[in-house]
Amino acid sequence: MSKWWIENGTFVTMDERRPVLKGHMVIEDGLIAYIGEERPADADAMPVRIDGSRLAFMPGLINTHGHAAMSLLRGYSDDEVLQTWLQDYMWPMEAKFRDEDVRWGSSLAVLEMLKSGTTTFVDMYDRMDEVAKVVDQSGMRGVLMRGAIGLCPEDVQLQKLDEAVRFAKDWNGQANGRIMTMMSPHAPYTCPPAFIEKFVQAAHDLDLPMHTHMSETAAEVEQNVREYGLRPVEHLDKLGFFSRPAFVAHAVHLTDAEIELLAARGAAVSHNPASNLKLASGVARVPDLLRAGVTVSLGTDSAASNNNLDLFDEIRLAALIHKGVSGDPTVVPAAEALKLATLGGAATIRQPMLGSLQAGMKADFIAIDTDQPHFYPQSDLVSHLAYSGSGRDVVHVWVDGIQVVKDGASTLLDEERIKHEAQACYGRLTGN
Amino acid sequence: MSKWWIENGTFVTMDERRPVLKGHMVIEDGLIAYIGEERPADADAMPVRIDGSRLAFMPGLINTHGHAAMSLLRGYSDDEVLQTWLQDYMWPMEAKFRDEDVRWGSSLAVLEMLKSGTTTFVDMYDRMDEVAKVVDQSGMRGVLMRGAIGLCPEDVQLQKLDEAVRFAKDWNGQANGRIMTMMSPHAPYTCPPAFIEKFVQAAHDLDLPMHTHMSETAAEVEQNVREYGLRPVEHLDKLGFFSRPAFVAHAVHLTDAEIELLAARGAAVSHNPASNLKLASGVARVPDLLRAGVTVSLGTDSAASNNNLDLFDEIRLAALIHKGVSGDPTVVPAAEALKLATLGGAATIRQPMLGSLQAGMKADFIAIDTDQPHFYPQSDLVSHLAYSGSGRDVVHVWVDGIQVVKDGASTLLDEERIKHEAQACYGRLTGN
Repeated sequence: MSKWWIENGTFVTMDERRPVLKGHMVIEDGLIAYIGEERPADADAMPVRIDGSRLAFMPGLINTHGHAAMSLLRGYSDDEVLQTWLQDYMWPMEAKFRDEDVRWGSSLAVLEMLKSGTTTFVDMYDRMDEVAKVVDQSGMRGVLMRGAIGLCPEDVQLQKLDEAVRFAKDWNGQANGRIMTMMSPHAPYTCPPAFIEKFVQAAHDLDLPMHTHMSETAAEVEQNVREYGLRPVEHLDKLGFFSRPAFVAHAVHLTDAEIELLAARGAAVSHNPASNLKLASGVARVPDLLRAGVTVSLGTDSAASNNNLDLFDEIRLAALIHKGVSGDPTVVPAAEALKLATLGGAATIRQPMLGSLQAGMKADFIAIDTDQPHFYPQSDLVSHLAYSGSGRDVVHVWVDGIQVVKDGASTLLDEERIKHEAQACYGRLTGN
Repeated sequence: MSKWWIENGTFVTMDERRPVLKGHMVIEDGLIAYIGEERPADADAMPVRIDGSRLAFMPGLINTHGHAAMSLLRGYSDDEVLQTWLQDYMWPMEAKFRDEDVRWGSSLAVLEMLKSGTTTFVDMYDRMDEVAKVVDQSGMRGVLMRGAIGLCPEDVQLQKLDEAVRFAKDWNGQANGRIMTMMSPHAPYTCPPAFIEKFVQAAHDLDLPMHTHMSETAAEVEQNVREYGLRPVEHLDKLGFFSRPAFVAHAVHLTDAEIELLAARGAAVSHNPASNLKLASGVARVPDLLRAGVTVSLGTDSAASNNNLDLFDEIRLAALIHKGVSGDPTVVPAAEALKLATLGGAATIRQPMLGSLQAGMKADFIAIDTDQPHFYPQSDLVSHLAYSGSGRDVVHVWVDGIQVVKDGASTLLDEERIKHEAQACYGRLTGN
């Protein structure tokens, strides 16, 4: 029924056996049915054909950490110390958020991400029903969770936990399977140990993976040691966090022992280079994590600490910064940087059918206009995408084989309305 | 005669008295004749009008260090140690360059720069007549110099010096004043002291500024100390380099004393963050340079070590990386990062009529489409441009009041031909 093909494309497959392939790809019922140099046998019988000759195709990017609704606070406060930024600017504004703010802030984020080539995003926030409805409508894939801060009385804690459990149950597998849910205590420094243990138990009961912020700043690590006598990885391990499939965001400040423990537990790391730089948190030990065999992926964090959601920016940063900081220009080469945003993302969120272009994989992929000066001479496409690519170069996006961005425009979302409503929400929140 | 105006624009002026202005701008004979909130008195009499209501305008960006022709080597060799990259990949390939390679490599670079909002670039290379002809044709502004490596017999050295002098004389002030020339020994580690002194003398004779690479890697600084008993700033100072108006590229490895000496001499620094990271050279002490009062600007370096020429990428890197590396999130705030690429660039190349939007300044400016999701909510435009902007957001570009990019396309260059010829040159150079 729904079977179509791309003719004469250049495919950056993320398949190590043939990383760059010139040929054809067939999509059938949301999956990649064929990819190869040979023209598909039933080519003439298939109704839809895309001329790929001026395009490069690659797997849709996977953004493994963010807070979509905070796009409303893009540029609201910059160049401040993390705790000031959080406590004096972000948290007071977020306390004013109503359902409509989460709806339009998340819509704005989803629109920006889709248009810049991200097909799957992880979102940890509040009022998650609103986010899930946006995901459903947009055609995007979302890994969603109610992130809970436990710095509150026990009855409020339990109410948040119930909300997280209810949301996780209601929405897991919804939107034609495009939504998956997880359990997510906000961070060791914002959640008492007993509260984290309750989330771990719930994750076991629901058979769901876990996600949290961890070791973003040196200060929170020191606090962890002061309060619990352990650094965050050991602390979370003691609370059972890594007994579930799990991944942590940031992980900037790690000891060798912590890296080994993350590797031993099979825990993954969402590396957020722009946010970590902007908030002056530091530079995560990504080359060491990769050497230890830890799965690493890329996240933008929210647009309030980045300030954009273009994952190509994170790819480029990941390829650049670890060289400059380590003094070793061979670490995180171009192909590795692209892998972080694709296969690394898929492994982080435990979705093995995402992240590469191979027969049998889900048809989440993007088309990039490579007929532009910054991609010439046309030589090493992997290098060009990592070091010279941008989300603005993305022209088409498909999720489950359905085209969600066509010629740079969202097919399912009303862009003009989203921009207008997001602006209105911002005006109300700030009194402007 | 040539008088026209922009109606209802938002102007990021780089004028501290009114950094962001909503209003109108009048261009007359290549200069900004008026900018202000009030409608121009003779508005109805002026023949051309641009509706600025969905655009942001800012000064054209100034790229203060690069080697345009090396765009042909974009992606040719990545993720290698600097000396290997230079000696085993770049220099052997560059030795094969003929006039046509410099012509088409530079054309490709100029096209990429113009389309991404750079209106002035500094170029240090060989066969500079070819580069100058490209600048003349493109409508761009160029600060051009024959960069000379002195690791050769004395007669070859003198031949290079003669070439540099001849080029500087022939082209200074050409292309309706859009070309200025400088004198440029390549670097202290590639030029014997006597050769540098000859360039200094020539710069005095011709009354031209000077430019060179300096202290890009720790190894070259050590070599300088070993060979000459001085670190590069003191070494160049001793050779009279800073007796001329001068600026150096990179300046990654500096002592406090060197920073003070640069400040005392009024020497400027071209900061090349992407190139320094990619080649693992390190991170320049930009916050310390700025505190000391040294003029700092931004350069892409060549596309072979970046690998793109979008100065917005350098703006973003400059705003991010110094926070992350210093641990201080208040350094290089958004407005400072934009200043590096505009006013800082103008001061570096000693062109006080560039870098801001004020009456009497040259009409080098760009228009950015801010009606896109990554610029919403429309709040702090300076922050949005620094942290979320890209050269792909630039829609129009003017130099001397003449439109050189319209709706994203070069008005004076043949883009299809340039891409084709650059690809052909690359094929011939690599045998592909």
